[in-house]
Amino acid sequence: MSSPSAAKSNPGNFFEDFRLGQQIRHATPRTVTVGDVAVYQGLFGPRFAVQSSDAFARAIGYAQAPLDDLLVFHVVFGKTVPDISLNAVANLGYADCRFLKPVYPGATLSALSDIIGLRENANRKTGIVYVRSRGFDQVGDCVLDYVRWVMVRKRDENAPAPPAQVPDLPKAVEPARLGGACPKIDAAAHDTVLSGSPHRFGDYQVGEKIDHADGVTVEEAEHMMATRLYQNTARVHFNQFTESKGRFGRRLVYGGHAISLARALSFNGLANAFHVTAINGGRHVAPLFAGCTVFAWSEVLEAADLPGRNDVGALRLRTIATKDRPCADFPLKLALGPAEGGTRGDGDDYDPAVILDLDYWVLMPR
Amino acid sequence: MSSPSAAKSNPGNFFEDFRLGQQIRHATPRTVTVGDVAVYQGLFGPRFAVQSSDAFARAIGYAQAPLDDLLVFHVVFGKTVPDISLNAVANLGYADCRFLKPVYPGATLSALSDIIGLRENANRKTGIVYVRSRGFDQVGDCVLDYVRWVMVRKRDENAPAPPAQVPDLPKAVEPARLGGACPKIDAAAHDTVLSGSPHRFGDYQVGEKIDHADGVTVEEAEHMMATRLYQNTARVHFNQFTESKGRFGRRLVYGGHAISLARALSFNGLANAFHVTAINGGRHVAPLFAGCTVFAWSEVLEAADLPGRNDVGALRLRTIATKDRPCADFPLKLALGPAEGGTRGDGDDYDPAVILDLDYWVLMPR
Amino acid sequence: MSSPSAAKSNPGNFFEDFRLGQQIRHATPRTVTVGDVAVYQGLFGPRFAVQSSDAFARAIGYAQAPLDDLLVFHVVFGKTVPDISLNAVANLGYADCRFLKPVYPGATLSALSDIIGLRENANRKTGIVYVRSRGFDQVGDCVLDYVRWVMVRKRDENAPAPPAQVPDLPKAVEPARLGGACPKIDAAAHDTVLSGSPHRFGDYQVGEKIDHADGVTVEEAEHMMATRLYQNTARVHFNQFTESKGRFGRRLVYGGHAISLARALSFNGLANAFHVTAINGGRHVAPLFAGCTVFAWSEVLEAADLPGRNDVGALRLRTIATKDRPCADFPLKLALGPAEGGTRGDGDDYDPAVILDLDYWVLMPR
Repeated sequence: MSSPSAAKSNPGNFFEDFRLGQQIRHATPRTVTVGDVAVYQGLFGPRFAVQSSDAFARAIGYAQAPLDDLLVFHVVFGKTVPDISLNAVANLGYADCRFLKPVYPGATLSALSDIIGLRENANRKTGIVYVRSRGFDQVGDCVLDYVRWVMVRKRDENAPAPPAQVPDLPKAVEPARLGGACPKIDAAAHDTVLSGSPHRFGDYQVGEKIDHADGVTVEEAEHMMATRLYQNTARVHFNQFTESKGRFGRRLVYGGHAISLARALSFNGLANAFHVTAINGGRHVAPLFAGCTVFAWSEVLEAADLPGRNDVGALRLRTIATKDRPCADFPLKLALGPAEGGTRGDGDDYDPAVILDLDYWVLMPR
Repeated sequence: MSSPSAAKSNPGNFFEDFRLGQQIRHATPRTVTVGDVAVYQGLFGPRFAVQSSDAFARAIGYAQAPLDDLLVFHVVFGKTVPDISLNAVANLGYADCRFLKPVYPGATLSALSDIIGLRENANRKTGIVYVRSRGFDQVGDCVLDYVRWVMVRKRDENAPAPPAQVPDLPKAVEPARLGGACPKIDAAAHDTVLSGSPHRFGDYQVGEKIDHADGVTVEEAEHMMATRLYQNTARVHFNQFTESKGRFGRRLVYGGHAISLARALSFNGLANAFHVTAINGGRHVAPLFAGCTVFAWSEVLEAADLPGRNDVGALRLRTIATKDRPCADFPLKLALGPAEGGTRGDGDDYDPAVILDLDYWVLMPR
Repeated sequence: MSSPSAAKSNPGNFFEDFRLGQQIRHATPRTVTVGDVAVYQGLFGPRFAVQSSDAFARAIGYAQAPLDDLLVFHVVFGKTVPDISLNAVANLGYADCRFLKPVYPGATLSALSDIIGLRENANRKTGIVYVRSRGFDQVGDCVLDYVRWVMVRKRDENAPAPPAQVPDLPKAVEPARLGGACPKIDAAAHDTVLSGSPHRFGDYQVGEKIDHADGVTVEEAEHMMATRLYQNTARVHFNQFTESKGRFGRRLVYGGHAISLARALSFNGLANAFHVTAINGGRHVAPLFAGCTVFAWSEVLEAADLPGRNDVGALRLRTIATKDRPCADFPLKLALGPAEGGTRGDGDDYDPAVILDLDYWVLMPR
């Protein structure tokens, strides 16, 4: 139907609507306030002292308590949804995500995306859109820069597809490119009693695994409140009437919700990982639904110095979140069968309880 | 019982307690903050740029992002409940509701009501109370003025009733009386990419119908949080123990919740309708319950110039909200039967899915 | 297991880890803002004018609307959980709790605890820890001081126990020690129309009972949001996966949630009890679960002058909260059987509907 009403409401873009090199300015700019901080606190319960306390943040060198990095991420991400992923089948991955400037309550965030890759799928029904999105504050500084790729439906299977173009993306952000959103801190002023753990950067070893121990059950009201807080309009999160007839029979929880839950759980074992400075990659391995209880564990993949900085070090973490499955034994992959000589967790397929596999860099005081 | 305790807790007013011309000052004054804005954002997810972004609001002529108009309405309305409608059977209608001054975070709102009409019902068990309520800010300016009428129980069926007096209420607010809460705006500075739609005032035609497309499921925790945020104490919204034995067997969602949901959904098709300037009338056609999914569509009833203003125009909208019923075919009334020569939607009775029929004026930039 | 990961995540303290005289500084400092006020408002719906309105608060002598006293309590309490009660079986009681300084939005709260008593239980599996906790603001002033005692598991039944030492605690806070968090107020400026009730301090009699009339149903999303808002990490509130196999088969609502619900309900009958100045004692008589509807009633136990102050008086209240049981007949204790010559409510055991028995002091304007 091409009625006037159809023309006025937003049908979203389909795969054939995107062009390589296209730039999209997104609605709606959003002033993020201490109100948003409190709602986020109520929904996830983070305990990192830098984001929780103005006094603590000032003592180490911030102007005041900055916004939780993931709140910034979700708000910027949310803006891209009506233009990029309203007709998405799946959010496939993230890469090269960097936090570039501290964001404080009162900042107004807006977002801009560039289409950097397109590849039609063999079935001609869908294609993959690679998009680099950037978030800006009210003075025009870029605060966040990341790439994601999504599988988007075609409006018309017969529509011609552009030549496939897949961007070359880094497996991980280089240490030299980390730390833009972290001012020079006074590591000695970082009170490890107040921050909740004596373990600083130097106390973690590569290969170390940490069970974050706690579990948190997700409610429908919670994930919808969070997702609306970000002005993320993806329909699968909100509409039980339609989803009851869909693939899962119920509303799907926004993938970013699992990231925020895992980050909040990770305080228990990583209390001084005060800043997520980059996300190297992430995969929503399985869908999350209300009623499930989320657990998480982390492995230290790398420990890196930041060139020119002796205040903080960077840990590259892999955090795995599960549903309805405690993580004391670090569930990840399924075992190969005995015929393959397998032992626990050495196969290619994820344990069915795993919902998130996230690779990211955090900063810790030295 | 006339025990001291009964005397201390508020039994609410019954029909025979009201007098024509009576004026009631309501408790509790309420400072509305960016915190309330964030909770409202989480509960409804509005995306109108003016209320979302201080930077956007300033660019067009506001001092900063004003409060959502409906948040102001609900807070003022909430104050009137303990005095006006604690013993109400039904909230019957609204008229002549005008927003008179922009309200910014930090304002303290209070409310005052005048009883402007009374009419006992034939059954002598209830009567209708017509009340004009006004909301004031901390400097004493009136920010909101509206009439509603409610059916209120009598304490004693035999109590004498005052002579019936029904106020003369306008079918719609005159365009000359609109716009008090909207400063002169710079329509050219209203960036329609950031606001989410290229369609300005001149792009809408009278008679045009818009399906707002999306649906949102309501949770008990959500509507109770919203209604408590407004300090609205109507008992039917909160008490499952009592309501489980009542008419519906469950808690009833505050009617204003459906209005806020419909307004937020209406962004999809009316993104530049940045300000609700008046409500001409409204009817809660059927009750809403948690678990239902709300959809909405709108029809443009009128387009009006505002005398002396060339920055904005007013659209008179009729927005219909439904439960568990998408609105692509604009559900409203039931068809007459074939014996009456009927076609779809030409009868007097509402489609059973309709929950709200709201007639209001919005402003759009020219 | 003494793996590195176990060493990094917090197992909490067990009974044998505490020492008499031990002082514990708690993580995480927390800046409490108008955002937290709004979330708390949405979750509990308090209507006390002093905390609701900056204008009202200023008119009587506050700098602005102070934080709800119980929000301050819960935030300070929450900080103590990871160190004191992560391995608690039960929170047994409170005593000598005093609010010492008004706390305004923007304050940063931190907490410190002293172990003032220890007593192993006869079964040698658990012991009781008596702890005095204090909350401080960002300038180091003590804003809250209270004692609680909790039953904590032993890690090892065979671990030696310290000699039993039980502190001497007052049955109630002396009137001379009340009022520290209440500035001298202008009682004449306390507008009893705006505050919602004409009843001032002098209008209440000792022995008077007040049914707070309303009931409010608790949802899982609500109590978890509240408890996360306080950064309270007690596991039983959040983890349905684990609790489904536990004693109750479901998540337990934080005891403080019932206190906040009862306080909000108590507005209906105690609207001018604008400040909780002390808590003499409290008992969580029975667990509360989502889905239950909470009711409350209060009895005036004492009315006291505050030495040197003629602006306010103190009422000592006993507030009883119930689940799924209205309070018009003031349920409290079970009757003795007829063989004992009993009448209603004269036994020692609580009515099974009672969940909270709280003894506290409030201030009211004269």
